[in-house]
Amino acid sequence: MKHDTIVLDHGSGGLLSHELTEKIMLPAFDNDMLSRLDDSAVIESQKGRMAFSTDSFVVDPLFFPGGNIGDLAVNGTVNDIAMSGAVPLYLSAAMIIEEGFAIRDLETIVASMAAAARCAGVKIVAGDTKVVPRGAADKIFINTSGVGWIAQGVEISAALARAGDCVILSGTMADHGMTILNQREGLAFDADVKTDSAALNKMVARMLAAAPAGGLRVLRDPTRGGVATALNEIALASNVGICINESALLVRKPVAGLCELLGIDPLYAANEGKLIAIVDKDSADTVLAAIKQDPLGGDACIIGEAISDHPGRVVMETAIGGRRIVDMLTGGQLPRIC
Amino acid sequence: MKHDTIVLDHGSGGLLSHELTEKIMLPAFDNDMLSRLDDSAVIESQKGRMAFSTDSFVVDPLFFPGGNIGDLAVNGTVNDIAMSGAVPLYLSAAMIIEEGFAIRDLETIVASMAAAARCAGVKIVAGDTKVVPRGAADKIFINTSGVGWIAQGVEISAALARAGDCVILSGTMADHGMTILNQREGLAFDADVKTDSAALNKMVARMLAAAPAGGLRVLRDPTRGGVATALNEIALASNVGICINESALLVRKPVAGLCELLGIDPLYAANEGKLIAIVDKDSADTVLAAIKQDPLGGDACIIGEAISDHPGRVVMETAIGGRRIVDMLTGGQLPRIC
Repeated sequence: MKHDTIVLDHGSGGLLSHELTEKIMLPAFDNDMLSRLDDSAVIESQKGRMAFSTDSFVVDPLFFPGGNIGDLAVNGTVNDIAMSGAVPLYLSAAMIIEEGFAIRDLETIVASMAAAARCAGVKIVAGDTKVVPRGAADKIFINTSGVGWIAQGVEISAALARAGDCVILSGTMADHGMTILNQREGLAFDADVKTDSAALNKMVARMLAAAPAGGLRVLRDPTRGGVATALNEIALASNVGICINESALLVRKPVAGLCELLGIDPLYAANEGKLIAIVDKDSADTVLAAIKQDPLGGDACIIGEAISDHPGRVVMETAIGGRRIVDMLTGGQLPRIC
Repeated sequence: MKHDTIVLDHGSGGLLSHELTEKIMLPAFDNDMLSRLDDSAVIESQKGRMAFSTDSFVVDPLFFPGGNIGDLAVNGTVNDIAMSGAVPLYLSAAMIIEEGFAIRDLETIVASMAAAARCAGVKIVAGDTKVVPRGAADKIFINTSGVGWIAQGVEISAALARAGDCVILSGTMADHGMTILNQREGLAFDADVKTDSAALNKMVARMLAAAPAGGLRVLRDPTRGGVATALNEIALASNVGICINESALLVRKPVAGLCELLGIDPLYAANEGKLIAIVDKDSADTVLAAIKQDPLGGDACIIGEAISDHPGRVVMETAIGGRRIVDMLTGGQLPRIC
């Protein structure tokens, strides 16, 4: 590369844009669909239902224990596609970069994207890079969009929970959110706090393979707004009540310590490698066992149930035997968590 | 809406995020796939080749004669998909908004996106909104990604030009780029200078319907970097030379005046509603006639040809009979044109 930092001409569409594409993007993402450099990638499509999702990532800081904005951006969209029951296959990556951004940091981020894509079994086939002057953006923002296809017979939606269904959470809460806050607040809790960012598509594939037809109703990854907000969305979309047991919720010790210190309720903190599943009661054990077989699902457990009472609302039975309403996040969370 | 301006909680994933989605996005983009609010949109897919494209828009200013960032973002991705010979059908819209941005401006932009989508016959089925603190982004950035399917027998790529083919340009040059510069430099040339931003998919449909099999080889919309850069990309990808005639190139008078004043070569200025087509010589008249029948194609003409000489290079025969090399844009263009 001719420069050590991004200059405006890297986004001009001209020679330097081409250099950036050819020297950094193409070698990292390495596939025929991208390297044709036509205005669109051309993909072999399947008949049937396709999932299509988009997400922009503006996390601050860019680098944090366990990951960076690059793998976060890939895993985030892979997971959104997987949560519709689809098999994610193709992603786009669009970057908005601030003038002066270090090329070396860009290379690190792009390498993480490529590694995350390989790990999830998806290809990054389309891209775009814009550069804005100093001060017009904070370092780098990444949008990923993606597609995948849904197998016949798979019907997953936030609207499909029914009273009597079990609510499964695939692991601990708040790891990602508290990692970012820990970094940002300079708390230097260097304890074992790191992001849980990971692709969940293989876990979902295990669940779909194990569940009887119709047994798996809802999948959602509790990112921004945390488990509490995701459960509220499901309760509203399905018009059921949801009751969860506080004692079934897991938070890793150093994460719990940070939550207490910062006054953050882990129920509202972001996760980037966890899923909530709502499953038919009769399928719950089978699906739970499938999750636990996945390397990312060892801590999965049933955290509650969908009920016919108080449709649209989430309540929690607390560890000391009380009940409290768990509202949707109303504010107060720090921005730029993902 | 509870607020007049965007606050951080509009991006939290919680209640205010939901209000923004329900009150602004859903009514404007109005379709079942989006309003399910699952993590992915679910689309009825077709067997065969699918085009998939992404583009981020960071244009400054946001509002300019003839359009704004919203319709630009929709038309831009519609065009990228159309340039692969596909019929664009579904788009995503992901916004990164600066805290303090006026809700009224957001509504205007969203309304323009919805109108542009209707006009192009595409649906906005997936979305995402992030909010960053004041100073972390300049007002609003929009990413659109999209998909469309390519009919059997259609083979369009920048790599398919052959010596002897004709080069068609669908209209005047530099309208969009000079509109933005005019606004930004505060030149107040209130003359008749406005963006050409428009969806080209209907024009492409006419061309595909008219062209004999294999007659239409390359389509590209000359946005960033202008006609010169797009032709260079084609010459490189197809390993042909391209020779264009200066006297065939059209620039509207007020645009030409602005170019002269600002020292901008219109060959390098951005267009947002024009296409370059490379067509088999025998198909050229038929395709040109089809373009001219389109409301956006009245000024189309043959501007040159692909040749076997100097593969990978573009030359121009000037109006006074000389020849000059037309390089790819090497820099000097102002940023944030699109």
